[in-house]
Amino acid sequence: MKGLAMLSIGEIGWIEKERPACGPGDAIVRPLALAPCTSDVHTVWEGALGDRHNLILGHEALGVVDEVGSAVRDFKPGDRVIVPAITPDWGTEAAQRGFPSQTGGPLGGWKFSNTKDGVFAEFFHVNLADSNLAHLPEAISLEAGVMLPDMLSTGFAGAENAHIEFGATVAVLGIGPIGLSAIAGAKLRGAGRIFAVGTRPAAVRVAKEYGATDIVSYREGSTVDQIRKATGGAGVDAVIIAGGGPDILADAVNVAKPGSTISNINYFGQGSGDEDILPLPRVGWGYGMAEKNIMTALCPGGRVRMERLAEVVMHGRMDPSRMATHIFRGLDTLEEALLLMKEKPRDLIKPVVIIEQ
Amino acid sequence: MKGLAMLSIGEIGWIEKERPACGPGDAIVRPLALAPCTSDVHTVWEGALGDRHNLILGHEALGVVDEVGSAVRDFKPGDRVIVPAITPDWGTEAAQRGFPSQTGGPLGGWKFSNTKDGVFAEFFHVNLADSNLAHLPEAISLEAGVMLPDMLSTGFAGAENAHIEFGATVAVLGIGPIGLSAIAGAKLRGAGRIFAVGTRPAAVRVAKEYGATDIVSYREGSTVDQIRKATGGAGVDAVIIAGGGPDILADAVNVAKPGSTISNINYFGQGSGDEDILPLPRVGWGYGMAEKNIMTALCPGGRVRMERLAEVVMHGRMDPSRMATHIFRGLDTLEEALLLMKEKPRDLIKPVVIIEQ
Amino acid sequence: MKGLAMLSIGEIGWIEKERPACGPGDAIVRPLALAPCTSDVHTVWEGALGDRHNLILGHEALGVVDEVGSAVRDFKPGDRVIVPAITPDWGTEAAQRGFPSQTGGPLGGWKFSNTKDGVFAEFFHVNLADSNLAHLPEAISLEAGVMLPDMLSTGFAGAENAHIEFGATVAVLGIGPIGLSAIAGAKLRGAGRIFAVGTRPAAVRVAKEYGATDIVSYREGSTVDQIRKATGGAGVDAVIIAGGGPDILADAVNVAKPGSTISNINYFGQGSGDEDILPLPRVGWGYGMAEKNIMTALCPGGRVRMERLAEVVMHGRMDPSRMATHIFRGLDTLEEALLLMKEKPRDLIKPVVIIEQ
Amino acid sequence: MKGLAMLSIGEIGWIEKERPACGPGDAIVRPLALAPCTSDVHTVWEGALGDRHNLILGHEALGVVDEVGSAVRDFKPGDRVIVPAITPDWGTEAAQRGFPSQTGGPLGGWKFSNTKDGVFAEFFHVNLADSNLAHLPEAISLEAGVMLPDMLSTGFAGAENAHIEFGATVAVLGIGPIGLSAIAGAKLRGAGRIFAVGTRPAAVRVAKEYGATDIVSYREGSTVDQIRKATGGAGVDAVIIAGGGPDILADAVNVAKPGSTISNINYFGQGSGDEDILPLPRVGWGYGMAEKNIMTALCPGGRVRMERLAEVVMHGRMDPSRMATHIFRGLDTLEEALLLMKEKPRDLIKPVVIIEQ
Repeated sequence: MKGLAMLSIGEIGWIEKERPACGPGDAIVRPLALAPCTSDVHTVWEGALGDRHNLILGHEALGVVDEVGSAVRDFKPGDRVIVPAITPDWGTEAAQRGFPSQTGGPLGGWKFSNTKDGVFAEFFHVNLADSNLAHLPEAISLEAGVMLPDMLSTGFAGAENAHIEFGATVAVLGIGPIGLSAIAGAKLRGAGRIFAVGTRPAAVRVAKEYGATDIVSYREGSTVDQIRKATGGAGVDAVIIAGGGPDILADAVNVAKPGSTISNINYFGQGSGDEDILPLPRVGWGYGMAEKNIMTALCPGGRVRMERLAEVVMHGRMDPSRMATHIFRGLDTLEEALLLMKEKPRDLIKPVVIIEQ
Repeated sequence: MKGLAMLSIGEIGWIEKERPACGPGDAIVRPLALAPCTSDVHTVWEGALGDRHNLILGHEALGVVDEVGSAVRDFKPGDRVIVPAITPDWGTEAAQRGFPSQTGGPLGGWKFSNTKDGVFAEFFHVNLADSNLAHLPEAISLEAGVMLPDMLSTGFAGAENAHIEFGATVAVLGIGPIGLSAIAGAKLRGAGRIFAVGTRPAAVRVAKEYGATDIVSYREGSTVDQIRKATGGAGVDAVIIAGGGPDILADAVNVAKPGSTISNINYFGQGSGDEDILPLPRVGWGYGMAEKNIMTALCPGGRVRMERLAEVVMHGRMDPSRMATHIFRGLDTLEEALLLMKEKPRDLIKPVVIIEQ
Repeated sequence: MKGLAMLSIGEIGWIEKERPACGPGDAIVRPLALAPCTSDVHTVWEGALGDRHNLILGHEALGVVDEVGSAVRDFKPGDRVIVPAITPDWGTEAAQRGFPSQTGGPLGGWKFSNTKDGVFAEFFHVNLADSNLAHLPEAISLEAGVMLPDMLSTGFAGAENAHIEFGATVAVLGIGPIGLSAIAGAKLRGAGRIFAVGTRPAAVRVAKEYGATDIVSYREGSTVDQIRKATGGAGVDAVIIAGGGPDILADAVNVAKPGSTISNINYFGQGSGDEDILPLPRVGWGYGMAEKNIMTALCPGGRVRMERLAEVVMHGRMDPSRMATHIFRGLDTLEEALLLMKEKPRDLIKPVVIIEQ
Repeated sequence: MKGLAMLSIGEIGWIEKERPACGPGDAIVRPLALAPCTSDVHTVWEGALGDRHNLILGHEALGVVDEVGSAVRDFKPGDRVIVPAITPDWGTEAAQRGFPSQTGGPLGGWKFSNTKDGVFAEFFHVNLADSNLAHLPEAISLEAGVMLPDMLSTGFAGAENAHIEFGATVAVLGIGPIGLSAIAGAKLRGAGRIFAVGTRPAAVRVAKEYGATDIVSYREGSTVDQIRKATGGAGVDAVIIAGGGPDILADAVNVAKPGSTISNINYFGQGSGDEDILPLPRVGWGYGMAEKNIMTALCPGGRVRMERLAEVVMHGRMDPSRMATHIFRGLDTLEEALLLMKEKPRDLIKPVVIIEQ
């Protein structure tokens, strides 16, 4: 089978590989819809996961089941499925402790295009199919559905961890697709005012549709100052970090009230200085005593999470297809879609590749 | 001053009383908008609080500050305010433990028309004005705003306590104004499918607008059976009890999944049998081991709660004025509005009395 | 192999059965130490699970691994193990939602002597061995260790769900081994005053050792009145129900403060009246609005739970062997031990059968 | 009246001041027992709060009520009281949101020796006496009781925020009196293994008495490496930071498991570099995605907190007097006690000044 792989740092290309083998609890799936992620860009062009050779990329997919192992009960060949980006080893220590995304080590639930080949191929392998696949409801379009495996799951986790109470004021730092999903998630947790920090017009438009009440641009000065001023100096009840470099933690802490939550869903691909650190401002953080708590998440995975997100979409609570700004058709267009993600033209939110319908 | 009072069980009428005195931290307020509550009906015609003589009724009000005590800092005569139904004694034991609605004894935060005269008068008294009043934003209409003191605060508490996760399936039992607010609250916590149990057409219409996806009527058979069938036998993740007699607990427990939350915001005005109990079905409740947890709430009160609900309304997250089906004008119409609440015609959700604008 | 079985309601006896088969992820274990449980008594002599024929009893065991399936990685024949009473199907819907004890239906994680043969046999079957067995540390005696699978796990769950804050006042209703474990658990959550309701001298002695500060006997009048009086009328912050008939809920509710938690770990084997209900007193429960929340639990199971409880014991946080009042030796003594549990002499807390050492 | 004051940075001395005035809800208290705190040392000799002139020091006190305002109901002159270090303005915005220690701004509940004169004087002022004082039980010695206002309250908050589950493994970084209290708190939340990082023999002895199972010294190499090695590479479930400079966050993060909590109760008096930051190691923190959450607290204050801690002590759950290594007698010895705190001889945990008995 063929797959779009990272050949080495900075280099991608189509390669031939053996179709993966299917264990008793597993499934082999072929893609219906795929989406490149900023992580794929980090992996290839920034070497975020170190040097890798011939690693098939991709972790956002809808698919059709092609084969299932003997122990699989709820799925059969031909079923249309949502494939979560994170496929935990349910039952292991971290999962029993309540942290399924960390099974098998830090970020260990993230297997696709990290510890095994990803979904950018004619076929891909899913561990624990009964626990990690979800049936794709007919009512959900491919453009919408392909946002569930990572974008919605991660963005919504940002909102969940932010401990938003009804009417709370929230700042979302970053309005890429993760930030936009976080805005939608914050609205769906009952937030009142939502500040969205970003400038790209296409994203600003969707941010407003998803529930942002105030758009803040760094071009008009310090975003921290703008938000503090708009809140009469008070700051916000919750901050969701959905993008940014190592200094974004400082913005988050400085814009948060004493007694607040900072919820990070940003992958920090690089740190400050030789010591590779993220600087937390001592005074802004209240000397470690202002009760500005910092939560972090890796995208929640697994079947129930996907089924629940599908319920959100099916009942019209939000429409993720609004983020699919660029639609490609056919597996062959995948490279083009990935390169578009790398280039990030100003009208891009998320490219999607539809394989068949 | 004059006020509309419970004269004795089953009897109401206008009476003359002294204008209340204003302590150093208190405020005296005159009403801008008032709403009768089902509780007022229970109090008068069912004697739910026991026999009371010349107790001024009412606990849902917007108002204008008429006088403030010497220690009040954030309010002054002329300020338009939201008056929470529940006005806790902040700083007392129960409040420090996290239960402000229970200050001074069970349900002790509920003072208006319970332990002191209510708001159905030319003037009424508010304890701890800086902690218990909120400024009424100009952008909020009187019809919308008067739903905040009790309807929204109680209904939303039902949703908060239900521990709704994104995409969860919720059943709301009862679609009076409290149940409708709970539906809106469930949607604003991110629920997917929301079953609303009720039949009155006016309420059904608003239930759908507020987020109900399925309307269930007892006229078409057991509501428990209908919901279980609609969920493939699974039952729901959360139940909000927003109305009903002593047997409603059984419905709630029977429709809930193993591992779920039953959130009660219903005032149980009467019980079953001579022993005045609420029957919990042993098997349906899983022998006490099916992890069907039962939460209860009295309407949350206080300033921050009202400010937060105002934020929800101001940013268009939901429109409470949809529940104000019958608008009266002038304090003199209050008796008529209250009697309407007692009669409950089929097109009624909530009567509102606008005093001035 | 032979096993001690429920032959029919009211009748037990040794039977011969096939040694269970071992699936790829499973283990076959032979017992090292066994303990009969009140549930076994309910099952046989009260028919709590309905009529069953030739069902091998028992769900509390330490053992030695005899055989493992091909997919098992962390255990091998000869390993000494703790076997949780509850062995969830990790990865299923209820487990992903955070309710592993409810996998496969209400109380579905409870398989031993319920939906499959129990541990009172020469060999027994454990599903998902890597997720459901824990290594037995050498430092833990068999008498202590055999309390972990159910007694400690259930009693501690009662304390966890009671939301005990440092210095809170707690009442534990019932001082059988579950209640005693709940007392130890309450102390280990930081409770201040702990009321223990019971009369049996052996249990009273251990209750005090485990942290009870006040012993309350129904022989000296209403236990509710005694506890309310002792707390100056306030009632308690948390109640753990660890025994009792259908009326115990009333005691729990009546002794709890407004704003409190009632945590049930009692198996309600029978209800009141023809309608088989548990009566909740309307006024004592604050009309459903006094924020007296009711939590329920089935014993948490699985490997991590057992490992964690072993840590508690190994570091001397409490000594569960204090509950093993009657020690028997040899599998043949099991019937005698079970009958002792049925008779409940006054000096009994828990009988334990040691098979070999 | 006289008081021991910070005259300017680096300089202390006795000064004369007016006895403070008593508002209607306030109390004036004279000290029974006092304890200097490391914060006092930071305030004077490191200028942690900036330059202050003639600010009376001290925030840890037991006392006798000398005068109460007209609105005070529960206290009268002559009552022996516990005075919390933090005396929130209950009812204000932050308190209603659940953050009473942050009332009136970051760390705003901390008034003594910060925003008003402290307790190191013949008389001191307590705001909201009914909400901020607690009666001192006779059963509690002065040496034990004076640990409640700050040491126990802060140390226990460290344990509460660490989300310790039964049997969890915890590391406490620092074994000054706050760290020792955190160890006791961790044990009282049900921790299994507790690593205590420190070297001073007097503190090590108490650490073990309070529940530490493993003592880790930086003199024997990297404490992170030692703890990771002792846990088989896994790291710990929770870390409590109870001391250290700006680099301690790195230790905390590096010793924590993926899926864990870092609970800070350390006052960060200085940061790294010119930009005054606290460095968070990017990789150790799992790129912001390893679910190593960071909680912070300022000492919880108020009456109920003090009453609850008194319950812990009265029922023998832990003995705080073990930390009172150096006892002085008479107000005049206060300067000597404070200088001892500054010098920190190796056998010191905490000096206490007893004024009368």
